[in-house]
Amino acid sequence: MSQQFDNVSVVKQGNVYFDGKCVSHTVILADGTRKSVGVILPSKLVFNTGAPEIMELIAGKCVVKLAGASESQTYTGGQSFNVPGNSSFDIETLETLHYVCHFG
Amino acid sequence: MSQQFDNVSVVKQGNVYFDGKCVSHTVILADGTRKSVGVILPSKLVFNTGAPEIMELIAGKCVVKLAGASESQTYTGGQSFNVPGNSSFDIETLETLHYVCHFG
Repeated sequence: MSQQFDNVSVVKQGNVYFDGKCVSHTVILADGTRKSVGVILPSKLVFNTGAPEIMELIAGKCVVKLAGASESQTYTGGQSFNVPGNSSFDIETLETLHYVCHFG
Repeated sequence: MSQQFDNVSVVKQGNVYFDGKCVSHTVILADGTRKSVGVILPSKLVFNTGAPEIMELIAGKCVVKLAGASESQTYTGGQSFNVPGNSSFDIETLETLHYVCHFG
């Protein structure tokens, strides 16, 4: 996996969620696809999804419980998890997460 | 001023400073120049510089006092301030800052 996106646009203004527990910047690929690169600080948060998402973890450690799931699962850097659209997930970040979020 | 960088690379792993009060991502221009896009949450911090920096504020509000300066100055989105190399500055962020940092 490449450690960087090449030939992309980056929006200078970031996105701040949950009082700054999550900060991301929007990346736009050459074909117009939007992704975000972000950081989640140690916390317990609930994220809601519009479009389906793939959360690709670059570094860090978290415990995730998808809406309707009976069990939670631990993920670390190098792993990914999928979240359905119009849903939500509980995420407990144990070690600061660096992620790429893929939409749609 | 453009709201985004175009035709750049972006490092997927972010940079986290001061327990997450400052989160940035590195952007690499086509000519190899490195910049960073970042967010500083409301806080009082002291930043040290290696290379000289130009802090370009995209949004937010802060009060800055450069090392050796007798007075502090207030800056808001749309303004910039210069910091010498091998120096430091006190920055009180009053409203979450979105910035681009230019080095060298």
